Amino acid sequence: MEKVNVFTLLEKVRAQKPVVHHLTNWVTIYDCAQIVKSLGASPVMAHAKEEVGDMAKIASCLVLNIGTLTVEFIDAMKLAARSANEKGIPVILDVCGAGATRLRDIKSLELLSDAKIDVIKGNSSEIAKIAGENVRTKGVDAGKVEKDLESVAKDLVRKYNCTVVITGKDDIVADMHKFYVVGNGHVMMTHVVGTGCMAASVIGTFCAIEKDYAMASAAALSCFGIAAECAAKKAKGPMEFKQKLFDCIYSLDKKTVTRLQKIRE
Amino acid sequence: MEKVNVFTLLEKVRAQKPVVHHLTNWVTIYDCAQIVKSLGASPVMAHAKEEVGDMAKIASCLVLNIGTLTVEFIDAMKLAARSANEKGIPVILDVCGAGATRLRDIKSLELLSDAKIDVIKGNSSEIAKIAGENVRTKGVDAGKVEKDLESVAKDLVRKYNCTVVITGKDDIVADMHKFYVVGNGHVMMTHVVGTGCMAASVIGTFCAIEKDYAMASAAALSCFGIAAECAAKKAKGPMEFKQKLFDCIYSLDKKTVTRLQKIRE
Amino acid sequence: MEKVNVFTLLEKVRAQKPVVHHLTNWVTIYDCAQIVKSLGASPVMAHAKEEVGDMAKIASCLVLNIGTLTVEFIDAMKLAARSANEKGIPVILDVCGAGATRLRDIKSLELLSDAKIDVIKGNSSEIAKIAGENVRTKGVDAGKVEKDLESVAKDLVRKYNCTVVITGKDDIVADMHKFYVVGNGHVMMTHVVGTGCMAASVIGTFCAIEKDYAMASAAALSCFGIAAECAAKKAKGPMEFKQKLFDCIYSLDKKTVTRLQKIRE
Repeated sequence: MEKVNVFTLLEKVRAQKPVVHHLTNWVTIYDCAQIVKSLGASPVMAHAKEEVGDMAKIASCLVLNIGTLTVEFIDAMKLAARSANEKGIPVILDVCGAGATRLRDIKSLELLSDAKIDVIKGNSSEIAKIAGENVRTKGVDAGKVEKDLESVAKDLVRKYNCTVVITGKDDIVADMHKFYVVGNGHVMMTHVVGTGCMAASVIGTFCAIEKDYAMASAAALSCFGIAAECAAKKAKGPMEFKQKLFDCIYSLDKKTVTRLQKIRE
Repeated sequence: MEKVNVFTLLEKVRAQKPVVHHLTNWVTIYDCAQIVKSLGASPVMAHAKEEVGDMAKIASCLVLNIGTLTVEFIDAMKLAARSANEKGIPVILDVCGAGATRLRDIKSLELLSDAKIDVIKGNSSEIAKIAGENVRTKGVDAGKVEKDLESVAKDLVRKYNCTVVITGKDDIVADMHKFYVVGNGHVMMTHVVGTGCMAASVIGTFCAIEKDYAMASAAALSCFGIAAECAAKKAKGPMEFKQKLFDCIYSLDKKTVTRLQKIRE
Repeated sequence: MEKVNVFTLLEKVRAQKPVVHHLTNWVTIYDCAQIVKSLGASPVMAHAKEEVGDMAKIASCLVLNIGTLTVEFIDAMKLAARSANEKGIPVILDVCGAGATRLRDIKSLELLSDAKIDVIKGNSSEIAKIAGENVRTKGVDAGKVEKDLESVAKDLVRKYNCTVVITGKDDIVADMHKFYVVGNGHVMMTHVVGTGCMAASVIGTFCAIEKDYAMASAAALSCFGIAAECAAKKAKGPMEFKQKLFDCIYSLDKKTVTRLQKIRE
């Protein structure tokens, strides 16, 4: 199996500056855009049903996040996803809050059946819910999951023939052939609203420049986690940490990334 | 009358980590979520009419803020408020911009008649308008109010049998039995967009863990104001102040809170 | 021709504290509000079709930004713009993302024909597209423009008898009688999401207190750029820069502004 080289992929992002189209939530929309920008890529947010198809066509990746979904907004996501499928660019779905309300469960499953989703991403209870487990998400914070997460991830991979990402203390990335555990990250991330959403945007940005989406996702999470580790060293509280998270990802160099990269395959 | 102990209530927030459901405005939605998170609680933002009732059911408090209202959005607020009433969790209403346009006045009154609102919060001219005074709010900044604010607050308390909060240099909290004046806070708050909205979210978080909503509101405003005082000491401008406001509230300790608490009953 | 005095206009903003009404995008809405607040003015964001007319009536300027447009949102913009026209306050239009999708081009032109727009603002490819050139905007980042920007700006000025602003390394401001090149600014601005949107809000704030909109726009861009230059000196990354950008604009003094002002007429 090809070894993941996080820095090589980051360099590719910086060189190619891909356009990453988002339909995301109104809470963390700025942070999603800025983390893509900080990586050296070009974020664009657009959700009108009349333009989402066109916007996806000029993008290299589509990121969907149901954090503040409405029925109409999901309809626009479907149009965008179908357009992305036609163009052959990857589609990332963050099933934010799945397991908290029936609407989120139903709409996540509709998106999954309506278009080809390349990467499904969520925390443990969100992904477990989508995989069919009987769990409860505490709003947008993970609830308890009985089943082991590796099995949950692999069930979902088989069901949709896609890459599945479960974020947590260790992040899990699985597809039909591979299974990665990413050990980078910092507990301070749990005190900042939006780090989960940003992770999906970073995954999208890496998938925009690397066709092996499982590898791209693992590299993305490692890169994001390394930036978090660097930021945590310089910060005294969650908001100072958040500012430095952006600035660390902006200036990550080869030496730091290579030294800190922590991906088990 | 029971003495307010701000730090005891803050500790209860941190221990119970209540879910605080918001339907709020698109300007300060991130800050509302992050201030709840910084207190150690769990914010969730959801506004689809199909899920607001379910989301309120898994929450311990509902915060409504009409800052960027639409008619449809207010309809979703009504559904959420009725669901919150059924479950018996507190409902906070921030009448942001009341007194600026007719729509805001009408919709605020509709919300107040359509469901039981436990805490009405606003600046002086917003609350005066809702209490029936002839005033004008300057967009979302307070306009001039002739009548004394204590009377305004008490009129509104009687009308809706609820807790009323008027924010300003000194914050006023009143219910049928009590009247508090909170002296904490800092002028730097007036140079940052969203401190008023965040105050409502902090109030909601404290009301999630304390059934005496007037006491909870006074404690919340004192806590928020103390964090602002600490932040102002370390900041050279409004945005540095804002960052430190979040980080100070995250790390407030017993000694600081007890020493600085300034609530007149 | 009257010489532009940036600091005199900034002082006027601080003294008059005009209300600046926005219908803007969901990505940078907070930053647009905060930059207006940091200038000493009073931002208000409102987009319900039932109130936009009333809100424009209590404002001194209207800023429209199509960054996350929908058809319904544009309809509300038209109502707001007509109300602003009736009251005689300036209307600024940021054609964010024009040249990226057909919807953005069509809706920009509709807004321009439906109401009197006083200042049209965009990056090079956005403005070139509105001026009729065959260009492509890369999402919301500028694409390549063949024609020289001075001609593009002047074409558009003649077509709509308005002020045209093209932002870039040097900013261009043109109306029927004047042509300014503003040399202030810093490359760090290109690494932060929302500096373009904020520029439109700063322009709006200056136009709220100065009837010569070309001069007001040039002064606004110079002021914003000077703050960026000051911020860049103290910042190690884009997010630290952004924080300091707000705080520098808040505390700009006469000496700094006069020394750094760089406007060619």
